[in-house]
Amino acid sequence: MANKRVRVGLVGFGTVGTGVAKLLCDDADAIEARTGLRIELAAVVDIDTTSPRPVKLPEGVLTDDLDKLLNDESIQIGIELVGGTTVAKDIQLKMLAAGKDVVTANKALLAECGTELYAAARAAGRCIAFEASCAGGIPIISAIRTGLAANRIEAIYGILNGTCNYILSNMSKKGEDFPAALIKAQKKGYAEADPTLDINGADSAHKLAILATLGFGYEIKLDDIMVEGIEKISIDDVRYGREMGYVLKLLAIGQKDADGKVSLRVHPSFISPDSPLGRVNGPFNAVSILSHAVGQTMYYGRGAGMMPTASAVVADIIEVAIGNSAKLFNSLQIRPREKADSVISNIDNLVSRFYIRLMAKDEPGVLACHSKILGDHNISISGALQREGSGPQNTVPVVITTHPTKQKNMSAALAELAKLDNVGAEPVCIRIVNIPEDKVDD
Amino acid sequence: MANKRVRVGLVGFGTVGTGVAKLLCDDADAIEARTGLRIELAAVVDIDTTSPRPVKLPEGVLTDDLDKLLNDESIQIGIELVGGTTVAKDIQLKMLAAGKDVVTANKALLAECGTELYAAARAAGRCIAFEASCAGGIPIISAIRTGLAANRIEAIYGILNGTCNYILSNMSKKGEDFPAALIKAQKKGYAEADPTLDINGADSAHKLAILATLGFGYEIKLDDIMVEGIEKISIDDVRYGREMGYVLKLLAIGQKDADGKVSLRVHPSFISPDSPLGRVNGPFNAVSILSHAVGQTMYYGRGAGMMPTASAVVADIIEVAIGNSAKLFNSLQIRPREKADSVISNIDNLVSRFYIRLMAKDEPGVLACHSKILGDHNISISGALQREGSGPQNTVPVVITTHPTKQKNMSAALAELAKLDNVGAEPVCIRIVNIPEDKVDD
Repeated sequence: MANKRVRVGLVGFGTVGTGVAKLLCDDADAIEARTGLRIELAAVVDIDTTSPRPVKLPEGVLTDDLDKLLNDESIQIGIELVGGTTVAKDIQLKMLAAGKDVVTANKALLAECGTELYAAARAAGRCIAFEASCAGGIPIISAIRTGLAANRIEAIYGILNGTCNYILSNMSKKGEDFPAALIKAQKKGYAEADPTLDINGADSAHKLAILATLGFGYEIKLDDIMVEGIEKISIDDVRYGREMGYVLKLLAIGQKDADGKVSLRVHPSFISPDSPLGRVNGPFNAVSILSHAVGQTMYYGRGAGMMPTASAVVADIIEVAIGNSAKLFNSLQIRPREKADSVISNIDNLVSRFYIRLMAKDEPGVLACHSKILGDHNISISGALQREGSGPQNTVPVVITTHPTKQKNMSAALAELAKLDNVGAEPVCIRIVNIPEDKVDD
Repeated sequence: MANKRVRVGLVGFGTVGTGVAKLLCDDADAIEARTGLRIELAAVVDIDTTSPRPVKLPEGVLTDDLDKLLNDESIQIGIELVGGTTVAKDIQLKMLAAGKDVVTANKALLAECGTELYAAARAAGRCIAFEASCAGGIPIISAIRTGLAANRIEAIYGILNGTCNYILSNMSKKGEDFPAALIKAQKKGYAEADPTLDINGADSAHKLAILATLGFGYEIKLDDIMVEGIEKISIDDVRYGREMGYVLKLLAIGQKDADGKVSLRVHPSFISPDSPLGRVNGPFNAVSILSHAVGQTMYYGRGAGMMPTASAVVADIIEVAIGNSAKLFNSLQIRPREKADSVISNIDNLVSRFYIRLMAKDEPGVLACHSKILGDHNISISGALQREGSGPQNTVPVVITTHPTKQKNMSAALAELAKLDNVGAEPVCIRIVNIPEDKVDD
């Protein structure tokens, strides 16, 4: 069988774009030997055509003119690595209109405008492949769509943002506070100059929207997901949590609850340090999936960076070129939005355990007062920690962990506690998460 | 788009066959909702048509006549779950000749006769899908062939046999000796009545042959793989190893060595209990893959059992029905056997650290004598452990760990040590394995 020639064009010659160009140029022979595909990088489009990048492109390939790519009919696949939700959307729509399949790593765009883009692809008879949009080099989209296709997925628990995991790992292991850990992450290249979308949880929510849409088969919107970031996490809570037997992770969670509804959330979570996700450190990502036939499976690897993300982009190029992405894209059935509305659970109904820390005035009767308010809201205390010594303004930290209770009970109790004269600062509240595991009887 | 009807026939109505029938019968609607495929179980063939199984088949589907399946032209996909390498081979060849694609979980057959079967499939214009052959419900074949398609794979480290991992976990955690742990594994359904192929490492070798063929792109034969089982593992060595900081696992290893050759082996391995594979307990499987672009990725889940394996079989049925398996099967390029011969490393050249235990006569000068023999073979000692008290015939256990050395040096030293009058039993030798990890600078 003669090898098949595939010409591709790339838009966005930044970090990941450079990685993709490197893989396609340096590994063309190796990829051809494995797959029978001769992939040629025919165009690289970027507004910056002069900055040096650590890859040597073929002569005449780099351009600032998108039309060169769009009008080249020999280019079958367009790779959008611009990022963001404005220009990138326009580029993807133009690629589809020009008859090209699209490969992208753009989670924000897919989370916000996926339905519109998928419809445009279907109308054009093309497909969009997006393995690189979630968890970088971990083939998690493929696992959910293909490997677990026979399963009803019950829960997705993911560490989906390497920046946050690096920061939280450093706070936990090195005792650094949040600002110091963030600066270190930026120095090491694990955080952007503007890390807002990473640390506020939005990036994890984008990825969860994509994974949950595929996993639960409903069109999930960003608004369906409750999101809390890690910006306000104090090193004190990382330490107290550890004393109580937990490690702090930013988890993205999609779960079918007991009532059959799906709850979706991204928030800092105290989990067991011995659980598979509790052991994922540094900039790594991991996703644990519980599904009805296979039980628990877990996927671990680098969720970001030049070559890991490029690995997923090029895997998609290969799948598109072979023709598999189109078949998968066309066979995938997602229930429309109207059906999702009745399935998404209201976060008020979430049942969780909680860790709360109050900076309490060091005076008699305070703990009794706080305990009573919790009890009044039907919240049962499972553990408490009060250290001698004092914080600012004659306060002492009082740490309380609770048994499972509804989010709305906790929100009401916190509002009441915050109003007390004997509570010196906004109470801290972090969910304690018991990741469902496929335990075996040993 | 109207949903596509796909008729499948199953041969082998044992544990996994029952799981596949359950999934196809009970979940037909859910699978159709996700994939647009209406999968119909048209025939189930087994010599035993009377034993009760926990699934209700449609009327008239169960038969002991293979020809009913072969001659039914409406059946597009044949599922071979008979196992073994004789009857099963014949069945697969007949299915292909009858124009059916084949889905199988039969690792032994693929490891031994894969080349012949793949050629028969190509000649018939059909494909063979075998996700269920390795690591049960973990989509590891798909990860290697699709998710990591852009990568040059450098190392595959797998816990591929749940029976062995269950036994070793029990020995380690509960202090049970091998026979007791095996009986418990059989009671719990994690080991067959005849566990030979599991505990002697053959099953892991079958799976490694399949994964290494896909991962390294050479046709790997079983003879290329050095295999040691866990039958002779003593609880003493599990304990001494733990005292020296290791946990014992049966690892299947395929690795590109420094000289560019590929070494392939299955053997008991002392590894760090803090490494990702070191934490995999009970009947679970896990595979860690190091590859040039993405770095380390790891995949974890149940490697055997009715529903996990059925999950992989049905995933393959879906992939075959969509048409993706054929495209993947046809695009896959494996270098022929002649090329593999020059690439497979001779195990004598393997460089490893070793744990050895000698039952030494308790008399002066013995440790010096043993150390000298190791030194004569250019083996450097990294640690030693000698407990007071005695074993049989006035011997004491002397445990030595070594720095990296060539296998042939160790084999020669062991032969010499075994001959000594002051060594009371066959020396025990277990490799210490440092699993290559994608470490990050934190």
